[in-house]
Amino acid sequence: MGNAHAIAAASRPGPRHGAALLSDRSRAATSSIIRDLLLLVDRPGMLSLAGGLPAPELLPVDRVATATATVLATHGPRSLQYAPTEGMAELREIVATRASHAATAHVEQAEDVLVTTGSQQGLDLLARALCDPGDVVVVESPGYLGALQAFAASGARLIGVATDADGLRVDELEQVLDGLIVAGTPPKIVYVVANFQNPSGATLALDRRHRLLDLAARVGFVLVEDDPYGALRFRGEPLAGLRALAAGRDDGASGLTVSLGTVSKIVSPGLRVGWAIAPDWLRPALVRAKQATDLHTSPLTQLIAAEVLADEGFMSAHLEQIRSTYRERADALADALASEVGPGIEIGAIDGGMFCWGRLAGGESATDLFEVAIDAGVAFVPGDAFCLDDSGRSHLRLCFTTLTPDELGQAASRLSIALSSLT
Amino acid sequence: MGNAHAIAAASRPGPRHGAALLSDRSRAATSSIIRDLLLLVDRPGMLSLAGGLPAPELLPVDRVATATATVLATHGPRSLQYAPTEGMAELREIVATRASHAATAHVEQAEDVLVTTGSQQGLDLLARALCDPGDVVVVESPGYLGALQAFAASGARLIGVATDADGLRVDELEQVLDGLIVAGTPPKIVYVVANFQNPSGATLALDRRHRLLDLAARVGFVLVEDDPYGALRFRGEPLAGLRALAAGRDDGASGLTVSLGTVSKIVSPGLRVGWAIAPDWLRPALVRAKQATDLHTSPLTQLIAAEVLADEGFMSAHLEQIRSTYRERADALADALASEVGPGIEIGAIDGGMFCWGRLAGGESATDLFEVAIDAGVAFVPGDAFCLDDSGRSHLRLCFTTLTPDELGQAASRLSIALSSLT
Repeated sequence: MGNAHAIAAASRPGPRHGAALLSDRSRAATSSIIRDLLLLVDRPGMLSLAGGLPAPELLPVDRVATATATVLATHGPRSLQYAPTEGMAELREIVATRASHAATAHVEQAEDVLVTTGSQQGLDLLARALCDPGDVVVVESPGYLGALQAFAASGARLIGVATDADGLRVDELEQVLDGLIVAGTPPKIVYVVANFQNPSGATLALDRRHRLLDLAARVGFVLVEDDPYGALRFRGEPLAGLRALAAGRDDGASGLTVSLGTVSKIVSPGLRVGWAIAPDWLRPALVRAKQATDLHTSPLTQLIAAEVLADEGFMSAHLEQIRSTYRERADALADALASEVGPGIEIGAIDGGMFCWGRLAGGESATDLFEVAIDAGVAFVPGDAFCLDDSGRSHLRLCFTTLTPDELGQAASRLSIALSSLT
Repeated sequence: MGNAHAIAAASRPGPRHGAALLSDRSRAATSSIIRDLLLLVDRPGMLSLAGGLPAPELLPVDRVATATATVLATHGPRSLQYAPTEGMAELREIVATRASHAATAHVEQAEDVLVTTGSQQGLDLLARALCDPGDVVVVESPGYLGALQAFAASGARLIGVATDADGLRVDELEQVLDGLIVAGTPPKIVYVVANFQNPSGATLALDRRHRLLDLAARVGFVLVEDDPYGALRFRGEPLAGLRALAAGRDDGASGLTVSLGTVSKIVSPGLRVGWAIAPDWLRPALVRAKQATDLHTSPLTQLIAAEVLADEGFMSAHLEQIRSTYRERADALADALASEVGPGIEIGAIDGGMFCWGRLAGGESATDLFEVAIDAGVAFVPGDAFCLDDSGRSHLRLCFTTLTPDELGQAASRLSIALSSLT
């Protein structure tokens, strides 16, 4: 048979097996450095500041149990059946209400809300909807690794812009945009975590928020605000979110601003429930991408999330408990670093979120420190993991949420020992 | 300021707003025809054979409720916390055990199993891991729409190969491969639903399964078997899955065969729990893609699925109930079509699954029929929706799972009226 002959001939140099079949972009993809590093630090007795998990003892197991019982009793098969790609109406309603209430994001109506399988999926859907290979995405440096992975997976070219204690250096962004425009490659997306950024803990100042919206309107890029930590403010006054600020403008910025949210840090990451609040022209493209990706998010976990979020009494007490616990831990870590490590490490004020960003004042390499630190029984994530260049080499991300004040004191003490042994 | 000047200059022709920012692949993506069509048929009194949903009254609401209570009591915060990308050990274990038991897929160890957010995500991850834009994927024609969407989203070039009552025409596949090899573009993936295919209901004959494995080994493509319906056989003997057959061979086919599974049709689609059983060289690429996509699948729904699947007594009784209900409905539909429509529609034997594939014997257009049928109060999906060419124009997909035998009789009668009015 002719076919069999051609197939046999073609297979003569050896059929392509295994890794030769992988896509170029798959070969280029990297695993999360943090994920690989967490395997190293999973040892008995290790005090880990390396994770980025909410405090497990604050996960509302009992409330989720009663919510699930209510959902299954009320909605029956609907909670277990196929569901609309856009999300369950109950969840979209309560997300819209809460977002408008907290001034995190302007929502005209519940239909503005697209439910996602965690906010990580929101990043992936935005990358697919907006980026062709080679398109430019501007990210914060240091910045959230999961976002870098999602954007890179679409073949986008990532450009990092520095941050300081007031968040993204918008003046530096202007220079970068200038260069990109001259080169004919303005960015498709500028991505920021404006509240208590991961890893720097910095919050974007209000004047910079306005200037960022100016730039979005003038240049025409999609401004994505990812806000997992805004509700975890335990000191100071909250700032309005970018989509809320955009709503008051008539320069087109509101049609270019997307807000990503999640229940991961306020209820549970294990529900995998997030959302994207996006303008009308963009939402259908996100929905099409989501259809191809996972059809829809679990209606069961969506309805559980809606049930818990709608319980205002529970949510306000629960958030207060998270905030007071994290404040106590952040303060314990800051105090212990001051007393145990002293001027060898510099940190800024911590007003919320889950992370403390330290700088080794002597300019030591945080990666070198990491290696002696794990032997001393304390772990963190070296700053290099969050940067596209080497600007994070003397930085450490310290997550304070999962250790007690005593353990945080002990961790600081071990860090001090490790740092002494290094210098 | 220089920057502001450049930005102002660049924005003079008008900044890019809205749809101009969408990616090329997003613009090319289409929404599911079925999804759009389902909006049309959602009318009071409509008898719909158009869906593709499991019977809602058979969704195990009570068993899921007790399973959830057990999971939250046993695992506590672990069910609500971040979790490994690969999936929860409990679920991977029971999936491995059940797959080996049913001879659907060879599993060496639980680590071979990657948990996915429904099997739709398995398709998306395979597309990302294997396909660069322009790479060829061979699909069945007619074939599962969700797969076409997932592969197309990666920029792959889809080539359809015909099916008949014994599934994929492997002889035709050989000819297609011949041409592709000569052109220097052998496929990366050949995708089949070997049991009770959606939409044709056909099951791939055993000799064709072996020939397909021969071709995979000789040409070197990844053979993906998606098996949502295999457990829904209500007549005849089950055939071994492709990965199970591959395990007995020494030609490399086992390292090229992937099995996708899901709890959607046997427990609940709303849990969004599926899995990919894949060779060692491919799994890390799937895991990296999943990290960027949604970090991990909900540990809560994974543990619920594991709890229910591990209850052998429940599962065997539950599956028996699904099978007997679907058999009764399939037979009722087949009988009613024979008595009401008669020779105007041809259907094959239905031995399992959820679908009956009909052909209008007079060569009428199923899309024309659809328009008069919805006025007559009955809906189905025209065959064109499942084909890359016009080979499905006289075909209808009839889903028999969600109507009672009486309703199915009534639906056939309305279909007959619609068909008469057409000719």
